[in-house]
Amino acid sequence: MKTILIVGIGAGNPEHLTVQAINALNRADVLFIPDKGAGKADLAGLRRDICDRYVNNPASRRVEYGVPRRDAANPDYGAGVHDWHDALAAIFARLIDAEVPENGVCAFLVWGDPSLYDSTIRIIGRLHGPAHKVEIIPGITAIQALTAAHGIALNRIGEPVHVTTGRRLGEDGVRSDTIVMLDGQTAFATLDDPDLDIFWGAYLGTPDEILIEGPLPEMRDRIVETRKAARARHGWIMDTYLLRKREG
Amino acid sequence: MKTILIVGIGAGNPEHLTVQAINALNRADVLFIPDKGAGKADLAGLRRDICDRYVNNPASRRVEYGVPRRDAANPDYGAGVHDWHDALAAIFARLIDAEVPENGVCAFLVWGDPSLYDSTIRIIGRLHGPAHKVEIIPGITAIQALTAAHGIALNRIGEPVHVTTGRRLGEDGVRSDTIVMLDGQTAFATLDDPDLDIFWGAYLGTPDEILIEGPLPEMRDRIVETRKAARARHGWIMDTYLLRKREG
Ligand SMILES: C[S@@+](CC[C@H](N)C(=O)[O-])C[C@H]1O[C@@H](n2cnc3c(N)ncnc32)[C@H](O)[C@@H]1O
Ligand SMILES: C[S@@+](CC[C@H](N)C(=O)[O-])C[C@H]1O[C@@H](n2cnc3c(N)ncnc32)[C@H](O)[C@@H]1O
Repeated sequence: MKTILIVGIGAGNPEHLTVQAINALNRADVLFIPDKGAGKADLAGLRRDICDRYVNNPASRRVEYGVPRRDAANPDYGAGVHDWHDALAAIFARLIDAEVPENGVCAFLVWGDPSLYDSTIRIIGRLHGPAHKVEIIPGITAIQALTAAHGIALNRIGEPVHVTTGRRLGEDGVRSDTIVMLDGQTAFATLDDPDLDIFWGAYLGTPDEILIEGPLPEMRDRIVETRKAARARHGWIMDTYLLRKREG
Repeated sequence: MKTILIVGIGAGNPEHLTVQAINALNRADVLFIPDKGAGKADLAGLRRDICDRYVNNPASRRVEYGVPRRDAANPDYGAGVHDWHDALAAIFARLIDAEVPENGVCAFLVWGDPSLYDSTIRIIGRLHGPAHKVEIIPGITAIQALTAAHGIALNRIGEPVHVTTGRRLGEDGVRSDTIVMLDGQTAFATLDDPDLDIFWGAYLGTPDEILIEGPLPEMRDRIVETRKAARARHGWIMDTYLLRKREG
């Protein structure tokens, strides 16, 4: 039986790696590293850097694989994701079959924590074919990288926190303190509650980290412009933010 | 100027420690370790175990300090917490003043991630007296320990997740997929939505980890009883769970 390790590698700082993750990477015969295309070369580089630093198992091999693009033009978001997962599942099945020795161990390196807005667990879960064992190793998320960088608590005392996407923020608005991820459309710019503070961060944990915080009405334009310029400069951007009702 | 490191140590497994956290602990002249009283001796033990394993700076000293109890009898929850934070702030100020050398570095070891339902950041933030520098080092949370142990994703595809407390669950009910922490009153047992699944975990990441999952109506009593028995056996319990609307 083959063993599949789904390993959270943290959200940008190679030192986010846990001892458990380092041990897991060193147990693997094969390390699967996604290559998300030219634009995100820095990200593939970070994964390689992590392997260079922490993997000292001489028997381990690295296998890079191309990640197909999700069809963002599909008007049915769910169906688009479903098709994309099917394509990834076929790739994973082929990789595991071809690259992992009998009774061997392989590891998928997953950005942040594997449970948070990532499809690896779900895709591995629907693999058919020979039985395998799956282990998940948690990692530092972009949420924690955000709050640590800003020096703030995620929740107010005894209060809940909502974690959502840019798409859903646009639909649902803000009810409690809210973390927004996957917001390519800068949904925060459409909110006009004067009592919201925003704590925004891009490229968190990396040398390019950018932080902006303050009242949303005052910071909105600055964030939109900073985001646009940074995205043009890097060719890609990852940003996350917390919206919090001002107290008092 | 003194430097205060607020270091997340993960939620139960010493291997949750990140490289960044290990480096931070080794930078500190003084490590502050809370001693939460007889009942939670295992927890103080785990913190000592972490220091024994990972701290190899011969110059570092450990200082244990007693943590006052929050007055749970105060009918005003907010006021009770406020008084408790005042008491802790006085202790922290005294510790930093008395134990940390001029221009020295100290570290507070915080369970899980310092941003999540923990008051250390807030209390350090309101210290008066000499200026100091604060750095926060993120850690693996009980949420991620829960999802990793159950082998599940936290969110459904593109959907939000709510993170709340037992107290607020009782008041607010379940609107989206919900993580519940700090639930001494087993608030899940009061819900009667037949379409909810529960993924429950106690002592996550430790050798005593207990996991139960299934439809809430079927699992409710089993969890209440398992929880009660485990709590009696250990003298304390920490549990977290995810409530998810069944799909399909
Ligand atoms: C596909 S999700 C993966 C999240 C990841 N599994 C985690 O635990 O953080 C990608 C989103 O995470 C957030 N993100 C991840 N890394 C980030 C970083 N270093 N800085 C800012 N945001 C980041 C952004 O909101 C981005 O759109
Ligand atoms: C005061 S909060 C601290 C949370 C911590 N900062 C974190 O990041 O997980 C304590 C609550 O966290 C949850 N918790 C922490 N460690 C846990 C563990 N090992 N197993 C289950 N629940 C845990 C429980 O809900 C507990 O009531």
